[in-house]
Amino acid sequence: MQPTGRVTIGDVARDAGVSVATVSKVINGRYGVAVATSARVHEVIERLGYESSLVARSLRSTRTNVIGILVAEFEPFSTELLKGISDAVADTGYELLAYSAGGRPGADVGWEQRYLSRLSGTLIDGAILVTPTVVDPHPGIPVVAVDPHLGPEGPPTVDSDNLGGARLATSHLVGLGHRRIGFLGGREDLESSRLREEGYRAALAEAGIAVDPDLLRVGGYRSDTADLPAHELLTLPDAPTAVFAANDLTAIRTVEVARSLGLDVPGDVSVVGFDNVPESALCTPPLTTVEQPLRRMGAEALRLLLDLLAGGDRPHHVRLETTLVERASTAPPRR
Amino acid sequence: MQPTGRVTIGDVARDAGVSVATVSKVINGRYGVAVATSARVHEVIERLGYESSLVARSLRSTRTNVIGILVAEFEPFSTELLKGISDAVADTGYELLAYSAGGRPGADVGWEQRYLSRLSGTLIDGAILVTPTVVDPHPGIPVVAVDPHLGPEGPPTVDSDNLGGARLATSHLVGLGHRRIGFLGGREDLESSRLREEGYRAALAEAGIAVDPDLLRVGGYRSDTADLPAHELLTLPDAPTAVFAANDLTAIRTVEVARSLGLDVPGDVSVVGFDNVPESALCTPPLTTVEQPLRRMGAEALRLLLDLLAGGDRPHHVRLETTLVERASTAPPRR
Repeated sequence: MQPTGRVTIGDVARDAGVSVATVSKVINGRYGVAVATSARVHEVIERLGYESSLVARSLRSTRTNVIGILVAEFEPFSTELLKGISDAVADTGYELLAYSAGGRPGADVGWEQRYLSRLSGTLIDGAILVTPTVVDPHPGIPVVAVDPHLGPEGPPTVDSDNLGGARLATSHLVGLGHRRIGFLGGREDLESSRLREEGYRAALAEAGIAVDPDLLRVGGYRSDTADLPAHELLTLPDAPTAVFAANDLTAIRTVEVARSLGLDVPGDVSVVGFDNVPESALCTPPLTTVEQPLRRMGAEALRLLLDLLAGGDRPHHVRLETTLVERASTAPPRR
Repeated sequence: MQPTGRVTIGDVARDAGVSVATVSKVINGRYGVAVATSARVHEVIERLGYESSLVARSLRSTRTNVIGILVAEFEPFSTELLKGISDAVADTGYELLAYSAGGRPGADVGWEQRYLSRLSGTLIDGAILVTPTVVDPHPGIPVVAVDPHLGPEGPPTVDSDNLGGARLATSHLVGLGHRRIGFLGGREDLESSRLREEGYRAALAEAGIAVDPDLLRVGGYRSDTADLPAHELLTLPDAPTAVFAANDLTAIRTVEVARSLGLDVPGDVSVVGFDNVPESALCTPPLTTVEQPLRRMGAEALRLLLDLLAGGDRPHHVRLETTLVERASTAPPRR
């Protein structure tokens, strides 16, 4: 079907093979529509040119002046982003609503979409998704993702130079003389994890060191999920003399596990983290880590979202620099 | 009127002189009822014994399994509490919704009540209010306040030993030999501010030092509000040799102002803070401060709220210990 005059919601429903109520739900971002159906409706809306009228109008008419922030839990990484968003939101007239799934995101993939549906329209105008478990390409309201999910093209994103940062961390260890360097990876569904592993591999390749698959473990970005893999790495018969952990929480846990095994950090094993959350400077010994400018990343995410809400052009992805922060958890190997 | 059988919503409405719709709004915590009206309706509900039936039932039937957290803004104090609440909520089955008024709470006293009305029933089962601007004695849903507002008896509260902590901070400065000690107070509407000033005065009295009203300023607990009063204190003709700031953010600002004036900290002026947020350890020089166990306070607030939601007895107020953390921003006076 081709549009001849003003496209109606009935045209969209007919073309998508769904009810008018379903189209309305999709437009208003309500709960209760399958992702595939939502995608099909959005496709028809775009094809028929329906979105320029009602969709835009519905967004304008339900203005709440509240920005939603969806995080898996309030831990150091997400709260640093929150501080950056909070600083940047002052004087914009917007308020913030931060939703946490209660710390067990793995048990409920896609919870972000469920909450977007629940909050959009009546409670929030747009949302910042922090390390989302999935990214719906048609989220119903403007969204920006921080530390995005792996996968096809989604919403605008903010991240830092994960690959470059991981290279810095690994090259720092190589420069100290380490050859057996363990890698405690992040969350397998996140782009940041993949890029940090890629950076680790690139730095080893550059130094002519072959990757030993035995030295790669999934740490999951959380203290509790890092416990076992850190223990496994440090108790290998030919244990690594250094570990690059893909974030600070799992690096701090690695230091704790090492100490519980009677190992000295950095004497027996060096540890490098990633993020530079405040906790990394407060651990014993203070952690060498890769700094992501987390507060600036939060502020940038807000800026992108406000641009979208103001009807601006779809902004580009924003990638900020990473830098190495040398503290006391790394040293040349003894052996 | 005295109840003769089962009390109806009509009885409550008649007795309170309002419509049934208004009583319903009050019970369900909806927006649009004046605080005074809400208080009168609650008074009638309690007097007629209406709450044991419908009120309890309405709370049960609208269970959302989400806890609301209302904070003025996401700054270091509230995000440390958030981390504590987040850790404690794992495995309880509850999710968290944190609302921030966007960092300008002074412009909108009572915003917490507005958001409680908006969120309660449909989105949250209960709420933790962090440094609230007012505390409604009849909030409509179970609430717990952290660092409560000054005033008559409100909901259960969690705080730390503000008076004792302020005594520790001030006595530490007295012990180093300081006699002219400035006090940069907090937010005048908060109980914590009053108690910290009381502790400061008590420690000076104990040392036989008269309070000089010229050395007392309101810092407002925020960096921006502390700027001018810190500058005033440090540029007095007979300037203090030490400043006790009522929280870390304003202490850090005081250090920055001192340095911008060419003063050495602690050589020319010692500075003590309050809170021990991570930022206090990261400032230059690292800040001597009073530790509030912020994460434990968050966890305790959650525990009290879950008790209330489970229908337990109204719990007592919880007050946790404070301790002095000596770092590098304090030293004996030069003069």
